[in-house]
Amino acid sequence: MSTVGNNIPEKTIERLSEYRRTLLACHKQGITHIFSHVLAGMHGITAVQVRRDLMLIGFSSDTKKGYDVKVLIEFINGILDSECVMNVAVIGMGNLGQAITKYFNGKGLKLRIVTAFDVDPHKVGSVIDDIPCYHMDRFEEVVSSMDISIVVISSPTRIAPSLVVPIINAGIKGVLNFTSAPLNFPQGIVAENYDITTILEKVAYFVKESDESNDKN
Amino acid sequence: MSTVGNNIPEKTIERLSEYRRTLLACHKQGITHIFSHVLAGMHGITAVQVRRDLMLIGFSSDTKKGYDVKVLIEFINGILDSECVMNVAVIGMGNLGQAITKYFNGKGLKLRIVTAFDVDPHKVGSVIDDIPCYHMDRFEEVVSSMDISIVVISSPTRIAPSLVVPIINAGIKGVLNFTSAPLNFPQGIVAENYDITTILEKVAYFVKESDESNDKN
Repeated sequence: MSTVGNNIPEKTIERLSEYRRTLLACHKQGITHIFSHVLAGMHGITAVQVRRDLMLIGFSSDTKKGYDVKVLIEFINGILDSECVMNVAVIGMGNLGQAITKYFNGKGLKLRIVTAFDVDPHKVGSVIDDIPCYHMDRFEEVVSSMDISIVVISSPTRIAPSLVVPIINAGIKGVLNFTSAPLNFPQGIVAENYDITTILEKVAYFVKESDESNDKN
Repeated sequence: MSTVGNNIPEKTIERLSEYRRTLLACHKQGITHIFSHVLAGMHGITAVQVRRDLMLIGFSSDTKKGYDVKVLIEFINGILDSECVMNVAVIGMGNLGQAITKYFNGKGLKLRIVTAFDVDPHKVGSVIDDIPCYHMDRFEEVVSSMDISIVVISSPTRIAPSLVVPIINAGIKGVLNFTSAPLNFPQGIVAENYDITTILEKVAYFVKESDESNDKN
């Protein structure tokens, strides 16, 4: 992933997004203040890490009562969110595309999945989970008319490489690719390849290593 | 994620899994040798990174012809795979659970999703994509009888915290959690929290930063 002239590391951005979700849940429960070690414990990391992340974004707290939950949420919003809602499209409205759509919308985020693309005649022209589904043939036209800046690729892997050119031509700025085909985009397009197989294989590897080290003991 | 007495970094493990998928695709196409810069280009990284990763696992190549694809696949197999197939269960057989199952099985990996758990009476007792679906009440018994070592959590987020105790009690060794609730497990259980929202927010953040830096230019 390209980082474009900013100084906040990728991992910190990920954690800020995670902190915010936890803080929103705390706020909902009426919790007004939270200590760094409590927030850290909920994420399985150290308090030092939490404090370092918040220092990086210039947030300091009343150490006697902990962080003010509402103020910290607003502060993170200021870092992560753009001023207006960003429109997202899903390419491939199978199980994964539908899961992502359900998961996202209605969460009140500054990101909104507004449309889907597919080639399946049963899906094209229909509305799935309140999202209209268009044929890929209309990709460029719909991206422009709906002001879409980010796409999520949840198509079959074999289709993924054929999506690169339409995505570039349509002026998409961010791509989240869930298929097993790593996709390369020119500079200026933020792309994240996020293969579920990789993560499950990683978990399996560390389980195996853990077993082997136990066998040795 | 805990690393248990091994020296290969997490990111290298992820990339090895990705290299292997690319190498398998090359092998299928009849490609017998590949240069590090070609493999690197397919993953949008540098050749130095590829060579460093392979050096870390002790693999060296004939630099004139590039890496022998088949030999390298076997070598990575030896690092990543355990000797026997690991059985995986999915908790929550909604769209995401079904997407993951379809995605995984039939790929000939050393990981196999063998069963699912849910509480929906329409799903419990049925077979979905060749996977039998049991009620969560029977979790411990089925995990034991089917020798399951890894679970994938694709349940609704609000359910996730209630799964921690059954997972510990059943002797599960690895957890891949896709919900928005970060889950903590005791040492000895490898856990990866993998929230899709985080990744989409990260892509959006870097798109926003890129826009702002373009506005400045």
